[in-house]
Order: sequence, then structure tokens, then C-alpha cells
Amino acid sequence: MTIIDLIPAPLTKEGFADFGDVIEIDGAERIPINQGTTERFHALTQLDVAEQKGKPILSIFRATARPAPIKIELMERHPLGSQAFFPLSDHAWLVVVSSATNPSPENLSAFLARGDQGVQYAKNTWHHPLLIIEPTQDFLVADREGPGENLDEIWFGGKKNARLVLS
Amino acid sequence: MTIIDLIPAPLTKEGFADFGDVIEIDGAERIPINQGTTERFHALTQLDVAEQKGKPILSIFRATARPAPIKIELMERHPLGSQAFFPLSDHAWLVVVSSATNPSPENLSAFLARGDQGVQYAKNTWHHPLLIIEPTQDFLVADREGPGENLDEIWFGGKKNARLVLS
Repeated sequence: MTIIDLIPAPLTKEGFADFGDVIEIDGAERIPINQGTTERFHALTQLDVAEQKGKPILSIFRATARPAPIKIELMERHPLGSQAFFPLSDHAWLVVVSSATNPSPENLSAFLARGDQGVQYAKNTWHHPLLIIEPTQDFLVADREGPGENLDEIWFGGKKNARLVLS
Repeated sequence: MTIIDLIPAPLTKEGFADFGDVIEIDGAERIPINQGTTERFHALTQLDVAEQKGKPILSIFRATARPAPIKIELMERHPLGSQAFFPLSDHAWLVVVSSATNPSPENLSAFLARGDQGVQYAKNTWHHPLLIIEPTQDFLVADREGPGENLDEIWFGGKKNARLVLS
């Protein structure tokens, strides 16, 4: 079996541009509000969930770590809506995406997100389900509720596999 | 001058029902996802921002504490959309709301939110701008971007004032 090592790159807006938005303070429009007591880092991402009468909802995802080294055996996408994740504790976490039409172990991109960075996967972007480094971590998630089939999955299941290598 | 002391009650779904939703894990629908590695606490609130072509956006608010005792001198509301706040660090914070048509120091309700609780103010609900207890605290905020005038403010400015009393 061939194993492809994925080494995550630091998450940046530029590196992630093909996949969606990085939700972070760096580079944001800053607006002083609330009688000067609050700074608003404005519109870090816009939710894109209205297709087929979708509604935007907030949920919490409580993730647990997968065994190391983390094997990447599947990818998923949501054809009807974007999906945003923001960590609720300040610990680094992992993002694996693919811009290929048919994701495979050879065409994945991996990113190391800081604990003060979230992402929004654009509608129909292939991504791996939530991956963390700490034993457990909660995320606030903004995504779509509504009619229609909003999940595609692809399992690699072949002779090649990918794994995440953390330095 | 008459000073009205507001003593915050613990934030609960029942106590907050007239004002919007409490965003919390307690009592949520739980769905196992991601090959059993993640628990989804599903649809803790639905965003209500579509009026007059509004779009849902995510922002970060960085709040700083007001001097203690915190004076409540104004209230605001957003007639075109809901507004959700979730703390990004696990510290208690404060919520002041009013169900009156014309809020005044006599008809306010105050709540102490835990650091793992968020709220969504329903559209057009009078609330005080963000109030925290720690020197600074960040929040993920989900609200509305779009045309139209989406902020009403009322300043008390009279002979009566309210202040928050923390035990």
C-alpha cells in the first residue's frame, strides 16, 4: 500500500482562497461600536445557505481526536450550502480540503489552523470531517437546515492512503 | 437621582424565552456524526436575517469591560434581524434585555451567562450592547448585512438610572 504524507501548511486567507474563507481578525475591517467599548471585526464571512429554501442555523460540534497518525480515508461536501467552523477553545486544529472534482489521496491540501482561526467551506467544497489535535474541542458551526440532500461522501478505499504528519 | 439595582439571574432558556434563544449544549438535540468522532448539538438557534434582502454574516466582537458598577444608560434593537453572540473564551458575561415597548430603568431584565452559553436576540428585541466581566473577551457574532436601517437606540437620560450589581 502506498501512503501519502500530508504536511499541514499554516492556514492563511491566500492559501485557503480556493476552498472558502478564513474567519480571523487579521486583515479584517475594524469598526468601533458600543460607545467605544467594542471593536467589530466585520463580516469575516457571509453564509451561503439559501439554496432550496435553506435556513442558516448555529450548532455546536464536540469533536474528539482520531488516533495518530490521522488517516485520511474519506472526504465530504455539502452541495446546498456553506459550512463555517470556529473553535471555542484556543487550540490549533486541522483542515483537509481538495479542489479536485474527484478527491483522492494525491490531490489533498492540509492546513494547520490556529485556535483563533475558523474557516467557512464554500458550498460544494470537498473537505474532511472535523479534525482536532487536543483530545476534545468544541466548535460553533454555522450551516444550513432545510429540504434536499446536502451531503456527498467519497471513501478512498483503494491501494493508496493519505495520513497527516504533524511536526 | 433614583438608582435601580439590577441583580442578574442565571441565564436559562425558560427565563430568556421572551427575548430569544439561549445557545447551549444543555437540552439540545444530539446527533453523532463524522464516523462517531463528533457529537452535533443541532440547530441551537436559527438566524432570522432575511428581511429586506438581508444576508447572514459572521463577525468577531472584541469587547472591553465598562467601569464597575456598570451603568445601564441605553438600550438598542435591530428591527431587521436577529443577532447571536457566543463567547470565544470560557468566562461568564452579562445580558440585559427588555420586553417593554419603551425600555426604561424600571423594566429591564438582567442575566448572568456562563462562558459556554451564547444568546440570540430575536429581531426587534431591546438589549444592551455587549457587557462583560473580564477585562476583555471576544465573541463570534452572527447577524445581518444588507440594506435598510437596522439599529434603534434609546438613551434613558432621565432622573432614574439602572446599574448592574454583581454578587
